[in-house]
Amino acid sequence: MSRTWNFAAGPAAMPEEVLRQAQAELLEWRDARASVMEISHRSKAFMALAAEIESDLRGLAAIPAHYKVLFLQGGATLQFALLAMNLAAPGQHADYVLSGHWGEKAAREAAPYVEVRIAADARASQYRALPPRADWLLDSGAAYVHYTPNETIHGLEFADIPEVGSVPLVADFSSSILSAPLDVTRFGMIYAGAQKNIGPSGLTLLIIREDLLTRATRPMAGIFRYAEHAAHESMLNTPNTFGWYLAGLTLQWIARCGGLAAMAVRNRRKADTLYAAIDGSGGYYRNPVDASARSRMNIPFFLHDARLDSVFLRESEQAGLLALKGHRALGGMRASLYNAMPQEGVEALVAFMQDFNKRHG
Amino acid sequence: MSRTWNFAAGPAAMPEEVLRQAQAELLEWRDARASVMEISHRSKAFMALAAEIESDLRGLAAIPAHYKVLFLQGGATLQFALLAMNLAAPGQHADYVLSGHWGEKAAREAAPYVEVRIAADARASQYRALPPRADWLLDSGAAYVHYTPNETIHGLEFADIPEVGSVPLVADFSSSILSAPLDVTRFGMIYAGAQKNIGPSGLTLLIIREDLLTRATRPMAGIFRYAEHAAHESMLNTPNTFGWYLAGLTLQWIARCGGLAAMAVRNRRKADTLYAAIDGSGGYYRNPVDASARSRMNIPFFLHDARLDSVFLRESEQAGLLALKGHRALGGMRASLYNAMPQEGVEALVAFMQDFNKRHG
Repeated sequence: MSRTWNFAAGPAAMPEEVLRQAQAELLEWRDARASVMEISHRSKAFMALAAEIESDLRGLAAIPAHYKVLFLQGGATLQFALLAMNLAAPGQHADYVLSGHWGEKAAREAAPYVEVRIAADARASQYRALPPRADWLLDSGAAYVHYTPNETIHGLEFADIPEVGSVPLVADFSSSILSAPLDVTRFGMIYAGAQKNIGPSGLTLLIIREDLLTRATRPMAGIFRYAEHAAHESMLNTPNTFGWYLAGLTLQWIARCGGLAAMAVRNRRKADTLYAAIDGSGGYYRNPVDASARSRMNIPFFLHDARLDSVFLRESEQAGLLALKGHRALGGMRASLYNAMPQEGVEALVAFMQDFNKRHG
Repeated sequence: MSRTWNFAAGPAAMPEEVLRQAQAELLEWRDARASVMEISHRSKAFMALAAEIESDLRGLAAIPAHYKVLFLQGGATLQFALLAMNLAAPGQHADYVLSGHWGEKAAREAAPYVEVRIAADARASQYRALPPRADWLLDSGAAYVHYTPNETIHGLEFADIPEVGSVPLVADFSSSILSAPLDVTRFGMIYAGAQKNIGPSGLTLLIIREDLLTRATRPMAGIFRYAEHAAHESMLNTPNTFGWYLAGLTLQWIARCGGLAAMAVRNRRKADTLYAAIDGSGGYYRNPVDASARSRMNIPFFLHDARLDSVFLRESEQAGLLALKGHRALGGMRASLYNAMPQEGVEALVAFMQDFNKRHG
């Protein structure tokens, strides 16, 4: 038994250095004489850690001072509802751009709280292409525009940030956050579940423009209010302290790797390597996504004969290539290549795919 | 530097055996060839773990089959709102019994969703006594009755489960869950943040009678619905898998210690030891709570001269007695004696208190 290449879509592989440091200090963190998970989130030591982590994130992602950074719980799915409750008043409408499963779900969860208008929809393409920006029906009176920069299941990614005028752009970056530099100022709000590129599951990152915190919306519990979380520095109630700490170690690891620009180069190269192997297989493997919309993070691929799927899965696992089974909605295979997956892992996958083709061709 | 006695109110000390096992298998869990936090919550291995944990909990706490067990995120504070949204329809009322800070907060967070009626209130006693059951103004038409069996800040605990007739009794057990055997059948719903007796922060346990899952309430997002979480076995969205795993290790540790009956004996003895030292100090230390309402879990105490507080805190920390500072609402000291605190730690505290008295008397 030993650690091996893990292509899980999330919870996903974490950098081994991060896990080793967490392991080394699991029982005694810094001078706390306790685990980091055994101390109060309001202790000086943890408050200092939280400040360090925010500062590291602001540095890495060039987050301007007029954006608030929050570390919350509940996953992106909770935000699907909360963002509508916080950014729209009853009776207002919001524009949703659907490029896959998660955009659909975001719209569905928001619907009890805002009039959801589908501004663009790639369902007709079975989510193999992105809806062209020119066809989006945006309304300048919308409370916000929501889209999903990377769709984990269908494997589609926007190469650029869409221009939407003065309406706040809200983006579920769960599966591509911190994978490349990003112009935060183009967004009203960015949110992401941590379990792909930031850390373990159970933590959600929000980056929100401060003026959006004061929108008057509706009566609701304080725990639902972004403004309350912001006023309490993400400590309105007890946060997921261990997840927060691991996110901090992950940010330090990204910085040691050269920051987001270096991550972008690594991630581009990994994706190019795998797409080249798929496209160069003479149809033995295929990825159905339009070339301009292909995700760098999640690459679904299909064998020419689906009857070989179970053999491929069994043999790849034996070869130390884990979690390649595609999402149940699509079948086939999926390789997720988040930050923590090195080029070497992708090359091991490609070598296996070529060998499998030879042996079962 | 070494681990020492940690009296934190939460996030709180965890059993060292649990941390050591988590440390040993942090990079490779069972035969996953990855960390438990790097595998899909929907993988066979994690689903099996989740089933084991539920089974262990059901065994330990004697949870009947018609109660559903959920492992969620967001802390007890999120449940303050969600329980009102799920258990009451708009226009319904619910009875709240306030015996401290957390009961007040539960009522406040529920207020946007249910007509909150204060059935009993110990504010007049400054939360030094429990409101006598005979004085509670309960309404048989209430959607539910809510109370807080143990108040972490004020250090009050109900020795018995109040009888409330046929209205579902809902209890925030965050700070005393699993500290003693409990008759689950007396409750409609029990909930608890994990960070005191179950595991790390970022995980919330719900035990809910199945018929309450189908109450018709109001339109709301699926992520807010207990019935949806139950239908998806706590995997409606990505759960806090590492917290869930640590809760599982903690349950195993409790079982090895002899289960909840043994915990009750240990916890009673620890609390008796500390209260005896306080009461036997001739007024040097005092605990203001009515004897019948004193908490076994959280014991606030005050020095006869508050000017000595900072000296006490500095010297106790030097003596390896951590996190004794009282909640800012009350000042003074507080020792939290959750399951993971052994008798030995309480005796070290008592010895220090006696020595401090001698030196500074």
